[in-house]
Amino acid sequence: MAVRKKHDFPVDKVRRFIEPGPVILISSALKGETDIMTCGWHMMMGYGVIGCFIWDQNHSFDLIRKSRECVINVPTADMAKTVVGIGNTTGAEIDKFAEFGLTAQPAERVRAPLIGECFANLECRLADTRLISRYSLFVFDVLKAHVPKSPRLPHMIHYSGDGIFAVSARTANLRKRFKPEMLD
Amino acid sequence: MAVRKKHDFPVDKVRRFIEPGPVILISSALKGETDIMTCGWHMMMGYGVIGCFIWDQNHSFDLIRKSRECVINVPTADMAKTVVGIGNTTGAEIDKFAEFGLTAQPAERVRAPLIGECFANLECRLADTRLISRYSLFVFDVLKAHVPKSPRLPHMIHYSGDGIFAVSARTANLRKRFKPEMLD
Repeated sequence: MAVRKKHDFPVDKVRRFIEPGPVILISSALKGETDIMTCGWHMMMGYGVIGCFIWDQNHSFDLIRKSRECVINVPTADMAKTVVGIGNTTGAEIDKFAEFGLTAQPAERVRAPLIGECFANLECRLADTRLISRYSLFVFDVLKAHVPKSPRLPHMIHYSGDGIFAVSARTANLRKRFKPEMLD
Repeated sequence: MAVRKKHDFPVDKVRRFIEPGPVILISSALKGETDIMTCGWHMMMGYGVIGCFIWDQNHSFDLIRKSRECVINVPTADMAKTVVGIGNTTGAEIDKFAEFGLTAQPAERVRAPLIGECFANLECRLADTRLISRYSLFVFDVLKAHVPKSPRLPHMIHYSGDGIFAVSARTANLRKRFKPEMLD
């Protein structure tokens, strides 16, 4: 795993990385402490708006709720073992950046660090707390996105339970079958 | 595309098909009319609970809101052209089952039809309407699931915008790296 060179990416196009449903790594920071959690329950709720299920028993829950910020990082298939390790440990006991040899890079709009090795980094601000108590659902506005110029999509992993991931390792281009107004 | 032979599948395990984030086909029925819509914005909100973003301009919106039921169908990669066709047409103008040669099968718990050619069919009841006005978010309880005995996961398509889909055509088994209590 190497730190990736990235460029600014339009916030209203981040559905490219979230809509396919990959496991994401959510990084957070509060009072000098950082944490990373895995998340497989998330969705686009608008262009540039992402909802994430964050269990209140997760160590990251308070860091994100109190700081009202996070970074949504999209890992690649070659990071699968690291993703599982992050999901099977708790930030209450270890520093996950140190434990898993990940590079914390400063964000521009939030205090939470970017994970340099991930393909995409989406700086997010908590936009709606009203669904947290009922559904553990955090609604985030994406403030800034960092993505490599290529490839368009990386190989991503999609969790399916039981320790098994689906791997999206190719793309299918069906542009010609879309009405122009249906493309964005 | 052929109609698939299916068996009952535990409702609390349907995250297997939804959490990876495939494009889904939502079938609905109201007063003898049926419709099918594509949906790429959805998430697990609990075991057996699925949230779907359904735009109020979609012809299916009223059928689902008024009937308070639907079937969430998981198409396979070989159905990609049909999925795009369904997403680029409106049930206000055509009968999508007829137009796309899909088999409407009776469900057991809801009036909405199953799409026989899809890999998984999840019979759903609208459980929470409070998020529809603010987020176009329909929260469904899965009442019954129909899935083939094998494979564990089909090849699925995951939309990324611009007419391009990620295709999950293989799986990675990392069970041995999970703590037993983290597996379900």
